[in-house]
Amino acid sequence: MPTPPINEDTICAIATAQGGAIGTIRVSGPKAIAVTDDIFTPIAPSDTPLAQRPPYTLTFGHIKDEAGTIVDEVLIGLFRAPHSYTGEDSTEISCHGSPYILSRVTQLLIRQGCRMARPGEYTQRAFLNGKMDLSQAEAVADLIASTSEAQHRLAMNQMRGTFSHELMRLRDQLLHLTTLMELELDFSDHEELEFADRSELQTLASRIATVIARLADSFYTGNAIKAGIPVAIVGETNSGKSTLLNAIVGEERAIVSDIQGTTRDLIEDTINIQEYTFRFVDTAGIRQTTDAIEAMGIKRSYQAIQQARIVLWVVDSTQATAQITALAPDILPRCHDKHLIIILNKADLLSSAPLVDSKKLPEGTLLLSLSAKQGSGLERLLNSLAEAAHLPHLGPTDVIVTNLRHYEALTHALDSIRRVQAGLSTNLSGDFISQDLRECLFHLSDIVGEVTTDEVLGNIFKRFCIGK
Amino acid sequence: MPTPPINEDTICAIATAQGGAIGTIRVSGPKAIAVTDDIFTPIAPSDTPLAQRPPYTLTFGHIKDEAGTIVDEVLIGLFRAPHSYTGEDSTEISCHGSPYILSRVTQLLIRQGCRMARPGEYTQRAFLNGKMDLSQAEAVADLIASTSEAQHRLAMNQMRGTFSHELMRLRDQLLHLTTLMELELDFSDHEELEFADRSELQTLASRIATVIARLADSFYTGNAIKAGIPVAIVGETNSGKSTLLNAIVGEERAIVSDIQGTTRDLIEDTINIQEYTFRFVDTAGIRQTTDAIEAMGIKRSYQAIQQARIVLWVVDSTQATAQITALAPDILPRCHDKHLIIILNKADLLSSAPLVDSKKLPEGTLLLSLSAKQGSGLERLLNSLAEAAHLPHLGPTDVIVTNLRHYEALTHALDSIRRVQAGLSTNLSGDFISQDLRECLFHLSDIVGEVTTDEVLGNIFKRFCIGK
Repeated sequence: MPTPPINEDTICAIATAQGGAIGTIRVSGPKAIAVTDDIFTPIAPSDTPLAQRPPYTLTFGHIKDEAGTIVDEVLIGLFRAPHSYTGEDSTEISCHGSPYILSRVTQLLIRQGCRMARPGEYTQRAFLNGKMDLSQAEAVADLIASTSEAQHRLAMNQMRGTFSHELMRLRDQLLHLTTLMELELDFSDHEELEFADRSELQTLASRIATVIARLADSFYTGNAIKAGIPVAIVGETNSGKSTLLNAIVGEERAIVSDIQGTTRDLIEDTINIQEYTFRFVDTAGIRQTTDAIEAMGIKRSYQAIQQARIVLWVVDSTQATAQITALAPDILPRCHDKHLIIILNKADLLSSAPLVDSKKLPEGTLLLSLSAKQGSGLERLLNSLAEAAHLPHLGPTDVIVTNLRHYEALTHALDSIRRVQAGLSTNLSGDFISQDLRECLFHLSDIVGEVTTDEVLGNIFKRFCIGK
Repeated sequence: MPTPPINEDTICAIATAQGGAIGTIRVSGPKAIAVTDDIFTPIAPSDTPLAQRPPYTLTFGHIKDEAGTIVDEVLIGLFRAPHSYTGEDSTEISCHGSPYILSRVTQLLIRQGCRMARPGEYTQRAFLNGKMDLSQAEAVADLIASTSEAQHRLAMNQMRGTFSHELMRLRDQLLHLTTLMELELDFSDHEELEFADRSELQTLASRIATVIARLADSFYTGNAIKAGIPVAIVGETNSGKSTLLNAIVGEERAIVSDIQGTTRDLIEDTINIQEYTFRFVDTAGIRQTTDAIEAMGIKRSYQAIQQARIVLWVVDSTQATAQITALAPDILPRCHDKHLIIILNKADLLSSAPLVDSKKLPEGTLLLSLSAKQGSGLERLLNSLAEAAHLPHLGPTDVIVTNLRHYEALTHALDSIRRVQAGLSTNLSGDFISQDLRECLFHLSDIVGEVTTDEVLGNIFKRFCIGK
């Protein structure tokens, strides 16, 4: 049985989390204003029903049940299509944040013909009603989940359409290229005519490929910002790795105390430093061993380095040269594309800084002397981490891909445009090249939702929270 | 150093719980509209600053930081004194429910000169600005915490002033009585004159005492509704007490599935049945024992009975008569003021209902045959519990005291009026009786906040959540 068009239903949902002073219930759809009026009695200073009130107003009054008993004193925000979040007629009922009141009001709305909104259905309607494209809609979920400044900035840029505009520029260039190709096809009988100079086409395709590759590559950065920048803490056993992690986590409370709600409660070792979220991975101590189980632990340490963007190599200062010499062959080759910071720990046990021959270390390796136990030198480490995390291309309008679906579409688009480049250089028939161009266009359009199927849409929006 | 008048500050707070799609920040005080304008840029359809917008409107726009970077797209609700919750100029900033956004907007407000609101400060200001009396303000906290229909109804009645009106009637009567007493005092030199007939005064005092006593007594009911109606589950070991509790808790999910957010997550054995919250206390099995530790457990079972309003005595049906006979001397005398329900459990092990000589049981004792293990007969038990909980005096306008502070004030008022009654009957001097009358008036006024000290106010509002 086909599902009815989504916008015929009037939907409602509790849009705030449980436990606050205020709770908000959203109602959206053709009957949103009528069903709200059904359960609402306005009182002074305005006593006209919502249906007669202008949009963008707040109306004070009572929600009453079927028996006329007052359920709560509420404020109703009123919106009329298309000037609302969903683009439909909408109301927002702001009541006391009691679990009982919120569920009772929702029940009354359902009895008047509303149905509970599915997760993300408000944003899905906004997309279907043309209020935003798909990549903007997806950014709404990221925006709500953002706990660091960098996450927030990426989501905000995407929601405000910078990514969409970049894609649109790409599509314009692709369409131009396609037009040139089709012209060539139309006149291919006349061999003397070559409207599209193939070297000009090459240049254009190469320019497009570069932009798509840059966008796809930015996913590595975008994902690090969204999920937290991975930091591996490695070193010999007893060099103080766990003490360092505890010290960092403890210090962070003070450093970011003016920002509420980091994600530390969710993942024990994820913390915010300045604008970034960092995901610390503590690892097993690395040493030569014949023990099979210990060797597995060490193998996992190497994997942690591989997945990390920043490596903190913790060294016991009292044996600095020996430890660095011993592990350098294991650690250094694995860090060539990472930010490597060598922590000269246990500084409190030495009267002066340890002597380390930095010539044997890769250029740019940072050495930091500190005492994790006493907490000295930690602030410098936190600043160094924030510096190491500071990535290029993160201005307020830069485009960075954070979404796996977008990354996959860009990868497919990149494959297609590379086939176009190959075809042009091997003088492949224009028919085949046009096919690849169309595929490239298809994948880019997929990101903004122009060719997306219902199934894909369902998968995107079901990961949203209810009420958004 | 004296604190400045509370209303000079402009306060702000996040009024919604963390984790929802929408987050709301409240701003209240003389500069509320100006500081919101400082960080807010309105956009179409309305692009005038908030200061020029009429009250009770919503304005769409951007919150921007000092560098002009957009923090979020928001809707701002605007209220002007005295037509707001606090009675002051206020705004409500409705933004995306991201922890980062909410804390960032709060930071920006604080930089513009707001300070964070203390818990309950919004409601405290509403009280200080005469928007509600103290008992109404206290009900706001109860309303937000309400998870059952009965809790909600009590809080709503109190918030809407039914308790305050009852107290006002009492005060009028007391003032009338006081006037009559003072008249008698003024003319006490003229022994031939007796303006206030002492028997008339007695009748009036007795009427007042009855009402105060009824209100004070209602605290027993009100507290049971607010904290959950206490139910003790008692019986011999292995009669199936814990199985019954698990079965009730499981069954409840189905029964109350249309009401979200019972408090079960907080206290394992608190559940909602129909309009009430029940607090189940599972107890140690009762039997004759010489073991000192087991005896202590049994003593606690008796205490549970004493604190309960409803007692579920679980009996193994296969040994019904023996168990009832054995424990009747221990249980029955402790249940004379309780609802006693005898559960004939393990009904699945018998082919017919067990024979119990109900003549030996107190009149009105309910016997229920069920199988906790198989879940049969549970619905009848839940209905019986709801019936047993259905208390008199719980209509939509009835006054029931739920607040310990009010109960204590009523107890003091009752002591005073009883001293008045005693004084009148022993022909005590009018001076002394007047003193007691004034004390009675003082305690009643204390409830609505007319004579309350700053310290008491602080204690009342600090138990509120922030943002209310």
